[in-house]
Amino acid sequence: MRAVDLIRKKRDSGEHSREEINFLISAYTRGEIPDYQMSAWLMAAWIRGLNHAERAALTEAMLHSGEVVDHSDLPGKKVDKHSTGGVGDKTSLILAPIVAAGGVNVPMISGRGLGHTGGTLDKLESIPGFNTALSLQEFKRVLRECGMSLIGQTAEIAPADKKIYALRDATSTVENISLICASIMSKKLAEGIDALVLDVKTGSGAFMQKEEDSVQLAEVMVEIAKRMGKKAVALITDMDQPLGRFAGHSHEVIESIEVLKGRGAKDLRDLSLELSAWMFFLGERSKSVEEGRKLAEEMVASGRALERFRKGIDLQGGDESVIDDYSILPAARLHTDVISSTSGFLAATNCMEFGIALAMLGGGRETKEDKIDHGVGLEFHKRIGDRVEKGEPLVTIYYNSAAKLDEVKARIAAAFTFSDTKVPEKILVRRLVGV
Amino acid sequence: MRAVDLIRKKRDSGEHSREEINFLISAYTRGEIPDYQMSAWLMAAWIRGLNHAERAALTEAMLHSGEVVDHSDLPGKKVDKHSTGGVGDKTSLILAPIVAAGGVNVPMISGRGLGHTGGTLDKLESIPGFNTALSLQEFKRVLRECGMSLIGQTAEIAPADKKIYALRDATSTVENISLICASIMSKKLAEGIDALVLDVKTGSGAFMQKEEDSVQLAEVMVEIAKRMGKKAVALITDMDQPLGRFAGHSHEVIESIEVLKGRGAKDLRDLSLELSAWMFFLGERSKSVEEGRKLAEEMVASGRALERFRKGIDLQGGDESVIDDYSILPAARLHTDVISSTSGFLAATNCMEFGIALAMLGGGRETKEDKIDHGVGLEFHKRIGDRVEKGEPLVTIYYNSAAKLDEVKARIAAAFTFSDTKVPEKILVRRLVGV
Repeated sequence: MRAVDLIRKKRDSGEHSREEINFLISAYTRGEIPDYQMSAWLMAAWIRGLNHAERAALTEAMLHSGEVVDHSDLPGKKVDKHSTGGVGDKTSLILAPIVAAGGVNVPMISGRGLGHTGGTLDKLESIPGFNTALSLQEFKRVLRECGMSLIGQTAEIAPADKKIYALRDATSTVENISLICASIMSKKLAEGIDALVLDVKTGSGAFMQKEEDSVQLAEVMVEIAKRMGKKAVALITDMDQPLGRFAGHSHEVIESIEVLKGRGAKDLRDLSLELSAWMFFLGERSKSVEEGRKLAEEMVASGRALERFRKGIDLQGGDESVIDDYSILPAARLHTDVISSTSGFLAATNCMEFGIALAMLGGGRETKEDKIDHGVGLEFHKRIGDRVEKGEPLVTIYYNSAAKLDEVKARIAAAFTFSDTKVPEKILVRRLVGV
Repeated sequence: MRAVDLIRKKRDSGEHSREEINFLISAYTRGEIPDYQMSAWLMAAWIRGLNHAERAALTEAMLHSGEVVDHSDLPGKKVDKHSTGGVGDKTSLILAPIVAAGGVNVPMISGRGLGHTGGTLDKLESIPGFNTALSLQEFKRVLRECGMSLIGQTAEIAPADKKIYALRDATSTVENISLICASIMSKKLAEGIDALVLDVKTGSGAFMQKEEDSVQLAEVMVEIAKRMGKKAVALITDMDQPLGRFAGHSHEVIESIEVLKGRGAKDLRDLSLELSAWMFFLGERSKSVEEGRKLAEEMVASGRALERFRKGIDLQGGDESVIDDYSILPAARLHTDVISSTSGFLAATNCMEFGIALAMLGGGRETKEDKIDHGVGLEFHKRIGDRVEKGEPLVTIYYNSAAKLDEVKARIAAAFTFSDTKVPEKILVRRLVGV
């Protein structure tokens, strides 16, 4: 088999066999196919597309380019959730302890925030001492001890994906559903899971702003998972406004603990419970999603989920006193409000602008090397459908430096659209895919 | 300007400005854009295509990546001919002395044979001592002294094309009209010509087997030349059977000299005169193509073209006694005939097979490094439309090694198709493009 022939085949819209994809990925990972051949193939694949079988083969080849965590010595099902990212999306911190407390293992390998979206690892690291850089060995030990473990990608996980992603970044071959899904799924399946619940965001704060694009992305990921023998379902959920009341690392940790205490914003609580319910159902812990939902509510009401989170923080080196004392978290020194200059009903938000504003305050990254200020944040006082009077605060900004404050305030103010008549509230879970 | 943005633009079917193409090519030639980015762009360009302006800009950028020969100190027009290659195509050896003798300069930078097609340089090198590796300085001197000079590509000519061609070869981005034409034209225009006559072959022995593809190729090359301020015309000519009676290096030199002596095969003589006529016309030496044709015939009839060839051979270090004594050329020791096993009218040939058979005898290259046996050859006894009786020789094979002889004979025999009824003779010049 020769790379040049496989490039020609894809260039001419041919379909690759599993063996061909495997040759391409494994030889490239070993350095036997040069970057310039792989980038030509990636461009051909970007333009001509990959079918279901090719995507599954690509995922499988990238998955097996590295280690697949073996949990066979650990009883019980292993289920994870993956979100495509949004503003204020902190459900991982809530559902992991709920599901672990309910008896299903949650081995979660997460990413960092980039651009306008936050990352689970960054949020957890606002807890003093919390270590997300565990080895795979430690990852397994923590999982065994408390049923949940939250770490970052290690060098052993899908090295082909890492190498290919860097090449895609330099050759404008990133934004392609097949390549995106294979990249995500190869890393997720390396966790050694039995099932995966996907939270595919849609709307003005999501990567996929149109619902049909989000559905397509969800369908592809579910299809890949199923072809690889895993249970999977995707929830298409609203990201036309931030999830919950807060965005920003410390603030999101606090809000997550609040939900685990039975409080917190309704939308965040609802989505966390819904995702937990699906994880229980796919993990065969409940006979139905409804039963899973009741179990999830019970884990919160009984305080077992909260205690599980405390234990998980402790096992990963974090200061578990955060559960009772939020003051140990980094906080911003200053705050100011964005005031509404109009009266009316909140009709829409350009949600991505909030993520960009947060990054401008220091609470996000432009490049992977940027440092994050965990204390800054945004508090959202109004939701779509709410009545707003002129002079009321729309957003409270928690900040440490006034350098870009005027621009941040202007961006936030411009991100709200008002209507004279009441618009309906947003439906949180818009569709299910793969059921 | 960033390469990654230009790759994205072409990926999304955008059109590049002249500045963008120039940036891409010049930065790549300087090594500032890595191979993996150029190969991604090449694949995007291969699939999405380049328009007329982009092709011209690409040609121009590759042309100016190296030296453009300056003939401003040499009076008279400079006109060249380029052929897309075929079997038995030796017109360059005939028309260069005709046109030079007629008063138009022919600065010809040629290529070598590869695959089933022969190369002008290889043919000339069968003449003992003939040096095709002149420096650009020597190239200009020979041109000044006899109005013709035939050399190979030097390192100074279009280095961008050389680098890009190697990358295309490794990434399956060769067969694309825009890229092919820009590659050809950047090298041809580096000769410092005023006008170019293109001989675009079509049929079973040509790179472009379908006439409409050949016409498209011709149109693109003519358009590029005109956009770059050069006169250009293309003749779409038949390659459904070999041109002339012989293929093979020494044999083709002899056949060319025969034509210059007023003898030789009719089709070869006709096409050589027709191409010369167009070169005279574009070189403003004649008021019409018809007048050019008369001038060309006169150059042959008077013996002036033959004497010009003798002088050219001598100036490039070759043994000019070849004009009178063909025995100084390398010859094959053995010969055998391929006999017709049928009676009928010759209806078609799979002409490419003859080129492959010749290469198998040692008279062609599979890779650029292969050595050539200049003495082997094929002599074709029948042309399409001819009556053939069972037992008559179709082809005489001149060979030195019997190693692959059986396979060669079988290939040649299988390349002929017969008909019970007479088929019309092939029209040599099928169409004109750019007139």
